[in-house]
Amino acid sequence: MSNVQKDRILEGAEELFFKAGIRSVTMDEIARNLGMSKKTIYQFYRDKDEIVSALVQKNLEQDKCQMIDIAQRSTNVMEEMINMMKHSEEFFSKVNPILIHDMQKYYPEAWQYFQQFKANVVIDSMQDILDRGIEQGYVRSDIDTKVMARMRVWQIELGFDNNVFPHNEFNSWQVQLQFLEHFIYGICTEKGYQIINEYKSILEHN
Amino acid sequence: MSNVQKDRILEGAEELFFKAGIRSVTMDEIARNLGMSKKTIYQFYRDKDEIVSALVQKNLEQDKCQMIDIAQRSTNVMEEMINMMKHSEEFFSKVNPILIHDMQKYYPEAWQYFQQFKANVVIDSMQDILDRGIEQGYVRSDIDTKVMARMRVWQIELGFDNNVFPHNEFNSWQVQLQFLEHFIYGICTEKGYQIINEYKSILEHN
Repeated sequence: MSNVQKDRILEGAEELFFKAGIRSVTMDEIARNLGMSKKTIYQFYRDKDEIVSALVQKNLEQDKCQMIDIAQRSTNVMEEMINMMKHSEEFFSKVNPILIHDMQKYYPEAWQYFQQFKANVVIDSMQDILDRGIEQGYVRSDIDTKVMARMRVWQIELGFDNNVFPHNEFNSWQVQLQFLEHFIYGICTEKGYQIINEYKSILEHN
Repeated sequence: MSNVQKDRILEGAEELFFKAGIRSVTMDEIARNLGMSKKTIYQFYRDKDEIVSALVQKNLEQDKCQMIDIAQRSTNVMEEMINMMKHSEEFFSKVNPILIHDMQKYYPEAWQYFQQFKANVVIDSMQDILDRGIEQGYVRSDIDTKVMARMRVWQIELGFDNNVFPHNEFNSWQVQLQFLEHFIYGICTEKGYQIINEYKSILEHN
């Protein structure tokens, strides 16, 4: 039974964090949301920090699987990138950007997981997509895929940086979507460019 | 006479800094390069730091004028961006990237000028170019020019960041050129895209 309960706690906490960020959600609220006593929660997690770290690990694992899944069901690199864009948009639409800011500022352990994941998994898989894109004729062959993959991944952090894009002035998700779309246009050959345009015109007509 | 000598000292120091970076160049070498005594130099500049700050200010002033000049002699925004790219390439070809790393690390005052210039001048003029580009039909009208201008300017710093692009692994200028070219492709409409491609094919045939 314990693993079921452990997972339920994560799901309940996640629901609240997605809505309101991490900092403002109390253990009392998490317990109330689950219809569980705080005592039960503390049997599984030492404190909120531990819940946050567990949640980040869980989400990163899922993300990795989803990236693999997206790659498998996409017929080419353009479709893969468009599907990744849709996937991000879905995530953004249900998560309050304050979550990222809270994590960056108050949950260094969780943030550390995120950074390692970026360094070990995301940069490599991004470079792999770009290399395949060049082979398929959708990505310009004169880009340095190592530089571009690294740039793309660090750009995400830049978009969340409060000194560069102050949170009271910019919507973090809109900034991230602008970056993502610009990145894809920027690496495309003309053949790739046509495909994004088609995809975007379908979106606009829906 | 003094202003002439003051300028000569800057030019002589600049020549050495461009070749070898700032940190490794001594006041003795600057004096020797100018055929001047160190005593004379110290009549105008307290120390190397002061020379560096004066040089940065001078270069930023020149840069501002050159940007205005490029805008005036370009018939449209695409030409303007291509000319700015050529201008950067010229600068890169004569300057050792170690110069930027030295400045960032050891000359905080000079680095501060650079940052302020970026915040006050470069972001605004970049946004202006993008806005005009949309009017002219070369830049996609669905980009957020405020976000993109800011992203572009901060991207320059990202490219020089030793944690992201270690200097022993990446050539800083090549990273910057990759960013610049990717940025232009990323903001283009199809009409703009054709123009860069034409420009690049001319380059390749020369």
